[in-house]
Amino acid sequence: MDIQPQNHTRCTELSQDKEFMESLQICLIDNQKANHLAEIFKALSDPTRLRIISLLLDNEVCVHVLESVLGMSQSSISHQLRVMRQLRLVRYRKEGRHVYYALDDNHVRLLFAQGLLHVEHEE
Amino acid sequence: MDIQPQNHTRCTELSQDKEFMESLQICLIDNQKANHLAEIFKALSDPTRLRIISLLLDNEVCVHVLESVLGMSQSSISHQLRVMRQLRLVRYRKEGRHVYYALDDNHVRLLFAQGLLHVEHEE
Repeated sequence: MDIQPQNHTRCTELSQDKEFMESLQICLIDNQKANHLAEIFKALSDPTRLRIISLLLDNEVCVHVLESVLGMSQSSISHQLRVMRQLRLVRYRKEGRHVYYALDDNHVRLLFAQGLLHVEHEE
Repeated sequence: MDIQPQNHTRCTELSQDKEFMESLQICLIDNQKANHLAEIFKALSDPTRLRIISLLLDNEVCVHVLESVLGMSQSSISHQLRVMRQLRLVRYRKEGRHVYYALDDNHVRLLFAQGLLHVEHEE
């Protein structure tokens, strides 16, 4: 998809264009927001976590099922899920001896889906 | 937003449900795709890169303007932009002595916007 920038005149003119410079200052996210945003993307930058997310897109799934589908040991899965809970990517619900995992909120699902579109676009 | 999982019966029943297990296998992304996706999220997990992206959301901007708005040296900005070009987050266009940067494609814009929604939801 081509980009249609709204402004692309000479930089010397632009930097003297008070209105344009002010509009950029409004667009600029502050350091706190940038750090928070970077943390979210960092949480998603692990292949195993992404594979787990792919399984939780439409389903609430028990640890034993994740173990079986991913072919990983329960201790490895449990470790990843603990990290993912801390990162607020997933949440869990206990039912007797069973623990069921789901995505923490719809934003995780949408971020994953958007990233996947990007990958498929590049491939 | 609440999650409405399609399946949340007991895991012992689920793991014996051939149809459900097959549907999970279809959802599961392969290692190659997971690695590629993790790289994209990793590229976005840097606060300075995210601040630069916030300035390029609606604009094609010259290095000198970025330097002025971000209050960073031109060499620091140039270094980040070089990394961001390699990661295919941004692309550039030369016009005489001026170099203009824009987001590489619309997916970067959408990923950033989605991440920001997540941050604002959490805040």
